[in-house]
Amino acid sequence: METIKVACVGFGTIGSGVVKLLLENEDRIAQHAGCRLELAAVVDTDLTRTRNVEVPPELLTDDIERVIGDPEIRVVTELVGGIEPARSIVLQLLESGKDVVTANKALLAEHGPELFHRARQLGRSIAFEASVAGGIPIIAAIGQSMTANQILSLRGILNGTSNFIVSKMEESGADYGEAVCEAQLHGYAEANPAMDVDGTDAAQKLAILAQLAFGAHAAWQQIPRMGIDRLYRADIRFAGELGYRIKLLAVARLTDEGLELHVSPTLVRIGSPLAEVREAFNAISVLGDAVGPVFLHGLGAGQLPTASAVVADMIDTVVGRTRITFERLAMWSQPESRIAMCDFARVSARYYLRFGVEDRPGVLAQIAGVLGEHQISIASVIQHESADSEEGGIVWLVIMTHTALEGAADEALRQIDQLDFVRGPSIRLPVLDEETSVPTVG
Amino acid sequence: METIKVACVGFGTIGSGVVKLLLENEDRIAQHAGCRLELAAVVDTDLTRTRNVEVPPELLTDDIERVIGDPEIRVVTELVGGIEPARSIVLQLLESGKDVVTANKALLAEHGPELFHRARQLGRSIAFEASVAGGIPIIAAIGQSMTANQILSLRGILNGTSNFIVSKMEESGADYGEAVCEAQLHGYAEANPAMDVDGTDAAQKLAILAQLAFGAHAAWQQIPRMGIDRLYRADIRFAGELGYRIKLLAVARLTDEGLELHVSPTLVRIGSPLAEVREAFNAISVLGDAVGPVFLHGLGAGQLPTASAVVADMIDTVVGRTRITFERLAMWSQPESRIAMCDFARVSARYYLRFGVEDRPGVLAQIAGVLGEHQISIASVIQHESADSEEGGIVWLVIMTHTALEGAADEALRQIDQLDFVRGPSIRLPVLDEETSVPTVG
Repeated sequence: METIKVACVGFGTIGSGVVKLLLENEDRIAQHAGCRLELAAVVDTDLTRTRNVEVPPELLTDDIERVIGDPEIRVVTELVGGIEPARSIVLQLLESGKDVVTANKALLAEHGPELFHRARQLGRSIAFEASVAGGIPIIAAIGQSMTANQILSLRGILNGTSNFIVSKMEESGADYGEAVCEAQLHGYAEANPAMDVDGTDAAQKLAILAQLAFGAHAAWQQIPRMGIDRLYRADIRFAGELGYRIKLLAVARLTDEGLELHVSPTLVRIGSPLAEVREAFNAISVLGDAVGPVFLHGLGAGQLPTASAVVADMIDTVVGRTRITFERLAMWSQPESRIAMCDFARVSARYYLRFGVEDRPGVLAQIAGVLGEHQISIASVIQHESADSEEGGIVWLVIMTHTALEGAADEALRQIDQLDFVRGPSIRLPVLDEETSVPTVG
Repeated sequence: METIKVACVGFGTIGSGVVKLLLENEDRIAQHAGCRLELAAVVDTDLTRTRNVEVPPELLTDDIERVIGDPEIRVVTELVGGIEPARSIVLQLLESGKDVVTANKALLAEHGPELFHRARQLGRSIAFEASVAGGIPIIAAIGQSMTANQILSLRGILNGTSNFIVSKMEESGADYGEAVCEAQLHGYAEANPAMDVDGTDAAQKLAILAQLAFGAHAAWQQIPRMGIDRLYRADIRFAGELGYRIKLLAVARLTDEGLELHVSPTLVRIGSPLAEVREAFNAISVLGDAVGPVFLHGLGAGQLPTASAVVADMIDTVVGRTRITFERLAMWSQPESRIAMCDFARVSARYYLRFGVEDRPGVLAQIAGVLGEHQISIASVIQHESADSEEGGIVWLVIMTHTALEGAADEALRQIDQLDFVRGPSIRLPVLDEETSVPTVG
């Protein structure tokens, strides 16, 4: 049986998982690859840190040249993370004739066009299943299994850290800060979880999916996004009273006015599949015009689930499937977006509005007045006794609207925030109502 | 752009869906395939029936020779269904140099080894994503995306007709016969739904998945199976009282004693993903040793969802991915099973037991006595006032056991059925308790 040399650049959590799978499951991998994958080098700047896998010391190096300069190494995983030096490393790897497998969503969201263009010029491939939703095969599902479809919408819980925090706030009544601490204790959140909780990570993954499914050139920085860091536990409780859970959703949806893209904590009806996604799990609901709704659920992060996707990509690269897919996918292959973005202000949704207000007469009337001026009609109102407030002296007022334009809701909120009895920041979250456009079965 | 000729043998429900997608989405398909797929012939014995798609009359023929004899036709879908003439047609297609795409689970479960062997001999490929769970990409998930894993278990709701019937019995309190009628009215059940409701269809699909995931040579006829046709609405109600829903599950699970395979209505805890699968949806929960649990949900049957999988397979065949996958999959490539089946009598589970008994003293004591003799201990008992009975004069007695061996439970039931106060058939259903072996995240 032939042997093909592979290497791993980046020996952190995911890198250790990849090394572990490659070393411990050689035979199983060889059976699927039709050849032996020989780990020829593991590159990291830190050669001393303890990892949960034993690697033969002669394979470990801090010199990337050992990989770049070895023409026998054909497939290399980039698991450094972040933008630089990851970008330069990937370019060097491609230029030295290697196919690349990456889990780096930040890099693809930022430099995907450049890297994919260079790979095509050089006749090389980039596989990236692990970059979105870890062990869930969403890239393969859209890029291969659903190619007979026009994708109509994608809705994903793509950040496990945020989902863990929001789930804890719901289950144990913890406030945001307590839930973040618990996520850190369980290893689900970094010491600085900003990119996870502010929606950046989800927006980067959404940018990749939007390119894959719609050919949309969406800079992740331009995707309207809100994170879970602005939620109070009262929001979780009010949503529950209304029959919903709050989930950080990344949404891409075809509309008559173009592609709608955004990341936001969203009210999802209890009992629907996305609402039942717990702990640090990820999930994606895809709607195709032929296949109907397809829902995928699994671990979106973590050492072995992510390594599972990376090693499957390495096998696909070795057997030649990646090359074919990479050529056909047309990811970032055109200078222009294949679809126009719809103006976010023209997106319509039902909204959950929460205000902290002084407990005095006339408050509801004035707020309702402003909403009415913006053609936003009210579906329901919750206001409890003031004991509910998180700060002394204010009470929460929650309003569910009927369908309204984002732009109008935004403007109304800005005016309401200037009323003298409104204290502290208001919040506006979209409500997901299930799509019913399922193809006829028969 | 190059044009490749394709043909469709079988112009029933699925065939019409495939023709519809090919004719109406030419450009989209060409983009993914890198060439135009030209539909060159549609073969069916019935040329007059009305279909919901217009096909140019010169393409429609009842002469398979128009396909076999045309060397320009390279990819052909077999959508005839059943064993013969489907088997002969597939062999003829392979021998005339064509790659085959099929949705025919009965044919693969019965003649997979012969057909795959012949295809390999001839250097051809067979793609079969649509044969299991229609629009859910389970074949790709196991055969490509999870190749770095040892699959530990598979649990599927693979028969949409059964799931629709059981869901209706639960939601509307319909009895089995009424629910079957409703399924027929909605087009979810054939005039004779025997193969769907008796577990045959699910066992055939399970045989395919067991070969794919475990290399198991399991004749579907030898897979222990029970259908939903033995359920009373009282079972649905009792399961609900106990916190469960009844779902027809197909299970393949690695145990220390070999591969456990069976199809049975199973009690699944309310709130778990499989329990929430409604209507005619299918779902599969796969546990991999690296990736952890992956759950896929979608439409498992119906014209366009199934056609979506067929056309994706046609595209994969044209671009060359199918050839690579077919060579590596090693489906039915070895004369012997790669894994031993575990003796079904040695499988252990918790069981739901339901008896129809006369309402007189001593009944519970005697039944409990027989169970005790077989080392089966009782977890809980439900017996309501006799108004609950579906027939006059008997009452239902329901017992949930602790974990017991299948063989012991089977023997105990046989003895209990012979007691003079037991009237009508008893039933024994396994209870699915969630696996907790999820890889560590962090």
